[in-house]
Amino acid sequence: MQQKNTQWSDIEKQIAREALRKAYIKETEALIAEIRQQASQITNIDDLWSLNDYLNSKRYDIDGKYDDRDATPVFVLAQLIKEGWLNTDELTGLTPDKKAKVTALAKM
Amino acid sequence: MQQKNTQWSDIEKQIAREALRKAYIKETEALIAEIRQQASQITNIDDLWSLNDYLNSKRYDIDGKYDDRDATPVFVLAQLIKEGWLNTDELTGLTPDKKAKVTALAKM
Repeated sequence: MQQKNTQWSDIEKQIAREALRKAYIKETEALIAEIRQQASQITNIDDLWSLNDYLNSKRYDIDGKYDDRDATPVFVLAQLIKEGWLNTDELTGLTPDKKAKVTALAKM
Repeated sequence: MQQKNTQWSDIEKQIAREALRKAYIKETEALIAEIRQQASQITNIDDLWSLNDYLNSKRYDIDGKYDDRDATPVFVLAQLIKEGWLNTDELTGLTPDKKAKVTALAKM
């Protein structure tokens, strides 16, 4: 509720988008490496279907997380920090209250 | 329609099941090799999602094709011959009319 009253300037929105973009690259590159490694060890069909389930689930997760229709993505920035795809340094330029909110959420 | 009137002996059903089993092993082993090879060359996320789509589609196809609830699987045997996962030799033991039907369907 409180989030809705917080104004995000254009520059802050741009910082958030850029942070998301960087995290997206990191997360998808890590996923590609992980899948390549997992696939190289597959020798039976059940493991292949497990890989398929895992890919479906990661795709759903990633597609949702990086959906940039939300112009003030406090929660997703916090989630990405928590998951290690983003550093708080990459949020430099946001107002202190926004950084504090993101950082606090990331610790939950 | 005609198929429903054709009697399959227990031994014929067993031959069909064994042929399906062999084809399943061949097809899934080929798929595993193909996915391992494809995965090893993936460098961007769009290619990973394409692999995911391909896996979903192959799984749907394979799950349906090898569903063994049908005790007289003329059509699936024909399909597997057509796709190269089964040889007509592996149907030895079926009555000549059944082999002829499967072989004729495989040529369609």
